[in-house]
Amino acid sequence: MTQHTVEKTSVTLLGLGAMGTALARTWLAAGHPLTVWNRTPARAAALAADGAEVADTAAEAVAANTLIVVCLLDDASVGEALAGTDLTDRDLVNLTTSTPGQARARAEWARERGARHLDGGIMAVPPMIGVPEAGGYVFYSGSRELFERHRETLAVPAGTTYVGEDAGFAALHDVALLSAMYGMFAGTAHAFALIRGENIDPVSFAPLLADWLVAMAPAVHRTADQLRSGDYTKGVVSDLAMQVAGTPAFLSTAEQQGVSPELLSPYFELMRRRLAEGGGEEDLTGVIDLLTR
Amino acid sequence: MTQHTVEKTSVTLLGLGAMGTALARTWLAAGHPLTVWNRTPARAAALAADGAEVADTAAEAVAANTLIVVCLLDDASVGEALAGTDLTDRDLVNLTTSTPGQARARAEWARERGARHLDGGIMAVPPMIGVPEAGGYVFYSGSRELFERHRETLAVPAGTTYVGEDAGFAALHDVALLSAMYGMFAGTAHAFALIRGENIDPVSFAPLLADWLVAMAPAVHRTADQLRSGDYTKGVVSDLAMQVAGTPAFLSTAEQQGVSPELLSPYFELMRRRLAEGGGEEDLTGVIDLLTR
Repeated sequence: MTQHTVEKTSVTLLGLGAMGTALARTWLAAGHPLTVWNRTPARAAALAADGAEVADTAAEAVAANTLIVVCLLDDASVGEALAGTDLTDRDLVNLTTSTPGQARARAEWARERGARHLDGGIMAVPPMIGVPEAGGYVFYSGSRELFERHRETLAVPAGTTYVGEDAGFAALHDVALLSAMYGMFAGTAHAFALIRGENIDPVSFAPLLADWLVAMAPAVHRTADQLRSGDYTKGVVSDLAMQVAGTPAFLSTAEQQGVSPELLSPYFELMRRRLAEGGGEEDLTGVIDLLTR
Repeated sequence: MTQHTVEKTSVTLLGLGAMGTALARTWLAAGHPLTVWNRTPARAAALAADGAEVADTAAEAVAANTLIVVCLLDDASVGEALAGTDLTDRDLVNLTTSTPGQARARAEWARERGARHLDGGIMAVPPMIGVPEAGGYVFYSGSRELFERHRETLAVPAGTTYVGEDAGFAALHDVALLSAMYGMFAGTAHAFALIRGENIDPVSFAPLLADWLVAMAPAVHRTADQLRSGDYTKGVVSDLAMQVAGTPAFLSTAEQQGVSPELLSPYFELMRRRLAEGGGEEDLTGVIDLLTR
């Protein structure tokens, strides 16, 4: 029996916060040679015991391998950490949380220094890294060729979703999904506030709430169809006029329960504005128009 | 072979809007004798062809059967429609959208008129009625005995979930879940607004958005555990301090994309307030406290 050993791509990782450390552990566990650097060295020491090479400087870490993964606090930290390094002919994959504008500027900055560039937006928290069943993944955008070349290595810590050549698209997708999540959390905060003070166990209430949100989330497919066609009445189930008519009951229930309406009223206000403009027979999609004027 | 015929409960239904008509059709299809009344008679005529008895007045409809289901525009319409009827010994099931306060007052009003009372909050739109796989259901609260007596009949149009003796609880659950849904819709409106004007197809974006929200919805279980225990740091994955540190990227991305932050900033503002009060190591749950002060 002959045993074939496939050589695993060597990785340099800059940044060992909670996320960076989680990434490092999955690459080490999967047998990828790993060189790490962190501004404060203590976090690197723990990984050395697991087989990581610890570089004394970022320049040394960048010199060690072609594939350079960066996972730092913010875009400014990336500029600082990479300032004294030679990026010529390096494959730079930046997983640092950025805005689309920062990601685009950083891609240009990398190109000027002779590096190929891929930006990533991580849709996971550290405990989901290396746990495929947790469903975490990373949006990538920028060089498709670079993405394809390192796809297997990048897929070790989390799923990969490539969203386009525009370096800003990974960050834009990341921010868009997280923004929607905060909207959902604002809604659930209001819901929990409403039942507070009543004899209702939040732990019994939570599954009803979760199931309802899961059932309603697919409404975004109808919204997308309407945005693409420009016909906001397409497939409408409960029109804007009917939904606006229902909003006073939501606000007076909040008042009766002693709950501030501040998280819901801005959306209701936009619904009313769209109705006043003549969108009564539409779905809720017209609200999106009001946000981008 | 002997065939047993189980007699189906006769139902009176007041109100034939889109929802009432959907309810009527499922009871008729399931073989329940049905008497209907509507303020404007035209809608009743269509159902007569399907076998419904059409009452000329609400009083006549109420006299026809013991089980009286009401599905009108709002609570005021219920008072008006039932004003001249004899409710003595009737089983009144009110599916009209109400606030918890209205539902409690209506329960008392019904008791004074000699009726038993059950309030319902419909978690479905008319196309989901009579389609079990659509997952629609109705919250019921008030007399448990009345709920048990008519459970089978009430389960014909949609699933049933009994949430307590307090007549206001069905409406409270209804409003709480719909409020959370509007929060989620506000979040998705912001997300779609962010990608607008970029070369991103909303129809390709929608599944990413829906899957992410479905993956994040179970966070409410952790929130519920924290609310019950009072320990908002329990099981925290990404603490408030870290999340507040991320909010400027969301706001500047919105600005870069020409999107008003009005739907997100109230939630971020409450996150900042809670952080300022010392909740940095907590989950987002402390925001709920700020809503109920």
